[in-house]
Amino acid sequence: MSLIPIRPGREPERRDAARNRELLLRAARELIEECGADGLTMGALANRAGVGKGTVFRRFGSRAGLMMTLLSDAEAEFQGRFMFGPPPLGPGAPPLERLVAFGTERIDWVLEFGELARAADVSAYNRFDVPAAVLWHRHLEMLLREAGVTADPWLMSTSLSAVLEPERILHALRVHGVATERLAASWCELVSRIVRAA
Amino acid sequence: MSLIPIRPGREPERRDAARNRELLLRAARELIEECGADGLTMGALANRAGVGKGTVFRRFGSRAGLMMTLLSDAEAEFQGRFMFGPPPLGPGAPPLERLVAFGTERIDWVLEFGELARAADVSAYNRFDVPAAVLWHRHLEMLLREAGVTADPWLMSTSLSAVLEPERILHALRVHGVATERLAASWCELVSRIVRAA
Repeated sequence: MSLIPIRPGREPERRDAARNRELLLRAARELIEECGADGLTMGALANRAGVGKGTVFRRFGSRAGLMMTLLSDAEAEFQGRFMFGPPPLGPGAPPLERLVAFGTERIDWVLEFGELARAADVSAYNRFDVPAAVLWHRHLEMLLREAGVTADPWLMSTSLSAVLEPERILHALRVHGVATERLAASWCELVSRIVRAA
Repeated sequence: MSLIPIRPGREPERRDAARNRELLLRAARELIEECGADGLTMGALANRAGVGKGTVFRRFGSRAGLMMTLLSDAEAEFQGRFMFGPPPLGPGAPPLERLVAFGTERIDWVLEFGELARAADVSAYNRFDVPAAVLWHRHLEMLLREAGVTADPWLMSTSLSAVLEPERILHALRVHGVATERLAASWCELVSRIVRAA
């Protein structure tokens, strides 16, 4: 193997591309924060980032592609935390504590990224089978099993996933003015009761 | 008050209209049964019922209007049963039994009308505030209170409503091949654990 770059000058270009992508993603997140997901159009994003609209389309293909990129970044970060991060969300805490932490952190996540999840949820019927949903369904099922829940932990995990759906949480927050603390307390009650009766 | 009809001949016409409406609704239900909600177009309905397409549009306004009519018929029938029907779904049984019956019967309802509910759910964000959803949210909350659940029964009812959402139930049934009996058993576990720990 040679240490001489095969195509000299390529590395800096790649770094530029990565920087550019980061810049665009940051601008997109800012736009969503200010105007909601509906305000995030390809044109608005190009304006905000100070690049041509063509650049934005070349990078993400379409508005849906951009949404998916933003969402999968946000999901990947959340996955990293519940799989490898510090307890109680990550490994090392008792299963009930991890279940409680999962819901609490997920509610905060929805507050931050829910609009995006809502916008990307167009093919609603398949939302249960996207990799992120499958992964955290499994995670909840594993925690239920560890906590001694033997009554169909797979379906119980499905029910718990339903409770944490972005749309429902956003609706409670925005339409009914429910505070995130109250949502978290109710989640804690729910999983505690399920586990306590195990 | 006169007993003489103000507009003679109107009654038979009304009866005709009602018969016609019933006929169209029956044809629509058959079409959904055979082809799913996607197969229910205004043209297909006119064909099946042997009337002109104009009649169908005059009666229901649009495909969405037809869906809403069918759905509200189905919801009204279900409401009648849980509010005034025989126990354990209707009044007269202990609250936990009524909660169990509610989920079990709702799962069966979804099996029958879920495709319709799914098709009518276009403005998904508002689906939590349609009268039927508000009514059975209140019903679940009341049963939780009667069963002694004092921990935020309003939000607990929201969580239970999430578990019974048509899309999720249909997904479990169709994509994962979960039997309705298994869904009902899991619902029974869930509400029993919530109430038992009250």
